[in-house]
Amino acid sequence: MAKNIISRSKDYSQWYIDIVKEANLADHSPVRGSMVIKPNGYALWENMQAVLDRMFKETGHQNAYFPLFIPKSFLSKEAKHVEGFAKECAVVTHSRLIATEDGVEVDPDSKLEEELIVRPTSETIIWDTYRGWIQSHRDLPLLINQWANVVRWEMRTRLFLRTMEFLWQEGHTAHATSEEAIEETEKMLEVYRVFAEEYMAVPVITGIKTESERFAGAENTYCIEALMQDGKALQAGTSHFLGQNFAKAFDVTFQDKDGKLKHVWATSWGVSTRLIGGLIMTHSDDDGLVLPPKLAPNQVVCVPIYKTDEEKTLVYDYINTFVAALRKAGIRVRTDFRDQYKPGWKFAQHEVEGVPLRIAVGPRDVANAVVELARRDTKTKVSMPIEGLTEVIQNLLVTIQNDLFETAKKRRSEMTSVVESYDEFKKVLDKKGGFIYAHWDGTPETEAKIKEETKATIRCLPLENPYKEPGVCIISGKPSKERVLFARAY
Amino acid sequence: MAKNIISRSKDYSQWYIDIVKEANLADHSPVRGSMVIKPNGYALWENMQAVLDRMFKETGHQNAYFPLFIPKSFLSKEAKHVEGFAKECAVVTHSRLIATEDGVEVDPDSKLEEELIVRPTSETIIWDTYRGWIQSHRDLPLLINQWANVVRWEMRTRLFLRTMEFLWQEGHTAHATSEEAIEETEKMLEVYRVFAEEYMAVPVITGIKTESERFAGAENTYCIEALMQDGKALQAGTSHFLGQNFAKAFDVTFQDKDGKLKHVWATSWGVSTRLIGGLIMTHSDDDGLVLPPKLAPNQVVCVPIYKTDEEKTLVYDYINTFVAALRKAGIRVRTDFRDQYKPGWKFAQHEVEGVPLRIAVGPRDVANAVVELARRDTKTKVSMPIEGLTEVIQNLLVTIQNDLFETAKKRRSEMTSVVESYDEFKKVLDKKGGFIYAHWDGTPETEAKIKEETKATIRCLPLENPYKEPGVCIISGKPSKERVLFARAY
Repeated sequence: MAKNIISRSKDYSQWYIDIVKEANLADHSPVRGSMVIKPNGYALWENMQAVLDRMFKETGHQNAYFPLFIPKSFLSKEAKHVEGFAKECAVVTHSRLIATEDGVEVDPDSKLEEELIVRPTSETIIWDTYRGWIQSHRDLPLLINQWANVVRWEMRTRLFLRTMEFLWQEGHTAHATSEEAIEETEKMLEVYRVFAEEYMAVPVITGIKTESERFAGAENTYCIEALMQDGKALQAGTSHFLGQNFAKAFDVTFQDKDGKLKHVWATSWGVSTRLIGGLIMTHSDDDGLVLPPKLAPNQVVCVPIYKTDEEKTLVYDYINTFVAALRKAGIRVRTDFRDQYKPGWKFAQHEVEGVPLRIAVGPRDVANAVVELARRDTKTKVSMPIEGLTEVIQNLLVTIQNDLFETAKKRRSEMTSVVESYDEFKKVLDKKGGFIYAHWDGTPETEAKIKEETKATIRCLPLENPYKEPGVCIISGKPSKERVLFARAY
Repeated sequence: MAKNIISRSKDYSQWYIDIVKEANLADHSPVRGSMVIKPNGYALWENMQAVLDRMFKETGHQNAYFPLFIPKSFLSKEAKHVEGFAKECAVVTHSRLIATEDGVEVDPDSKLEEELIVRPTSETIIWDTYRGWIQSHRDLPLLINQWANVVRWEMRTRLFLRTMEFLWQEGHTAHATSEEAIEETEKMLEVYRVFAEEYMAVPVITGIKTESERFAGAENTYCIEALMQDGKALQAGTSHFLGQNFAKAFDVTFQDKDGKLKHVWATSWGVSTRLIGGLIMTHSDDDGLVLPPKLAPNQVVCVPIYKTDEEKTLVYDYINTFVAALRKAGIRVRTDFRDQYKPGWKFAQHEVEGVPLRIAVGPRDVANAVVELARRDTKTKVSMPIEGLTEVIQNLLVTIQNDLFETAKKRRSEMTSVVESYDEFKKVLDKKGGFIYAHWDGTPETEAKIKEETKATIRCLPLENPYKEPGVCIISGKPSKERVLFARAY
């Protein structure tokens, strides 16, 4: 166990905080609930962005940028939307400061006529803009994404998982028909699933939210749900079918092929820096961060070991030779040639920071034409001939990526239960946690009762439900069409 | 001249607005002074970001992200800094809305204890953070960049050139010595010069700002200054040597090699979406946008011309063949296969949107194994054999890039004057505009007088001054060490 990191079994919550700190991912900021994303954390986010951005563009989307500030009146145009966000809005009311004896004060003369809301999400400002962009069926579909910061005034915050300001992408698309919009909603959910499973190595369950967990203003919210090591669920991404709600609120119509004026159909979908929290909590261990190779800023780190200057030259030259070959093959390699730190210190640092593979090279390795390879995830060490090293490492990175996914999947499977009664439900929840499949009568009342009594929520109605058979609700005894997925969640 | 675009000679200011609109670069937003960056504009920004980001990383910088909100008290810690920004701050004062009969109101109970400022720039929040990151000389240099949105409350705004919210990057570095910090300031100025000249094809003059034009809180501000087609200058990027001002204001010290505790030396540097405005105003013409190939989202567009379905198949197949080869060579090609638009309409659209090269292909071209190539910048058209097309286009893109730069440089040269008296200064300014080299006595009083009387400002004291000989000030007649660069500016 690494110094400064408490064990998961002792205090999971503190373990998470320790990892974020020791791996140099993020810091708290003096503004309560805001965070500073440090270079290690930001490099991870850049890699996630790059993959997602490519996937969005491959599915026909273009990026754009909409204003940070939303006029207060816009928010109230969609009734449920404002209800959902009114309680957590940062409100700009003035535009000037004036000097005083002790510093500065807000200039009362600079009060705005209409207050501005720092965007908590951009449906309103975007649909107000789309009114000017959409006239004819030829302007549809409109497939836009935005990378941006958003603010939701949260009181209980946790780095990456829940912060007042966070970075995200929000897709906002416009379609001529309901069918096309639903197809888009599902397509982007699938993009999120592929990203979570194939890049983050985080297995997810795709499903539909209940009415009470739906996005404010949506007709239907799809989600991907992941399971953390402590048995709590994490909503990792959402894709919303917005129906014509925003088109009607902002009067966005188009002339269809039949010559008739119709309201446009909408979707929106987003993932955020919260994914970094999910990544940490899925793979990391008591020694620090563990990163999937596909997203790791450095996939391999090389640490030289030497005593004399002569040995140093020998080892450096040797490393530079095979590193050039690795880089040529597209592998992200860092050479840690910092003189002021000892190899042992470097080993510990790169372990805590989660670099998937470490290569150590001493004079004896040079003499034998080998290197020492160490896997971060399994901690296994092995001596490997320099001959064919590039291919070995390429394969090893694939193996690590797959192993991380399989390990997480196995853990999820072990932490998934199917229960028949409310007693069993509560017992499993307290003893074991994890995902629980149980029958529910479909009413918000039953859902609320369970949430109140157990803090468990319906994570989703899974799209591919392995427990689809009908039964009776564990609370009300009323008929249930299928089991739904419960868990306590972040 | 394109429909909907007024000629530059008739109304330069309206011409700029027309270009932004017709090339689908940006829109006004309902929040006064804010803009919506449309997909064409954002794609251009993405390309600019990609190049700059690579250059920053190659010079050893890492990206990070700091909070949007700055506590009011932070701003006042550096006296000149707050003076510079107090009058244009968006102030967040509340955190909640409540429902009323007509919509929503700001909840008075949610008033913040300390107001938050939406960052106009991030020196204060970053230096407050650096206090925790820097202890020893081993933590230095700290080379960080941030891509972010910032807000400055502007009343007179113009899309891209001056908006309330804009996108930018801000580098913030920390160093052990004054020399190192100055070296960094100059290194990043050089990065900006290379980017402006070699990628944007915009010639710039590098120089140092006078005290009155200096960044609020800097010891020295370096800049790159470009000249627009109407003879007005545009400050295109700045790099600041901040001395120890912020380190002292936020008490950021380090233990040096000699064991002594010292204050850290700082730089900051930034360019913004304003560059897009500069790009437009340097190269575009009365037919629309003109883009340098290195930054153009699409470098080549292919437009098929056909009448029958048979011809369509023939032309499409032909295009697809050479397009595959072009893409393989790394050329960004768009095939405009939209059925609903006629070729003439497409020609006009791509011309207005500034695609550097257009390829048109009709059945006769297929029969003759040629294509018709049209350059956006010169409007020249030429028939080219399909054989060797990739190489021809690669070379042509390089030629266009160089030609744009040379044309802009020639124009700048023609619009640069050297004057000997204030009368001549005023005459040149009103008749011709452009850059004016003139002697100045080095006092803020003279500088202010000239600005007040002529609206011309000292753009910079050029680093490589072709008119370095001493003389006498055109206003006061006092001695002047060298001529400085004047212009009216955006």
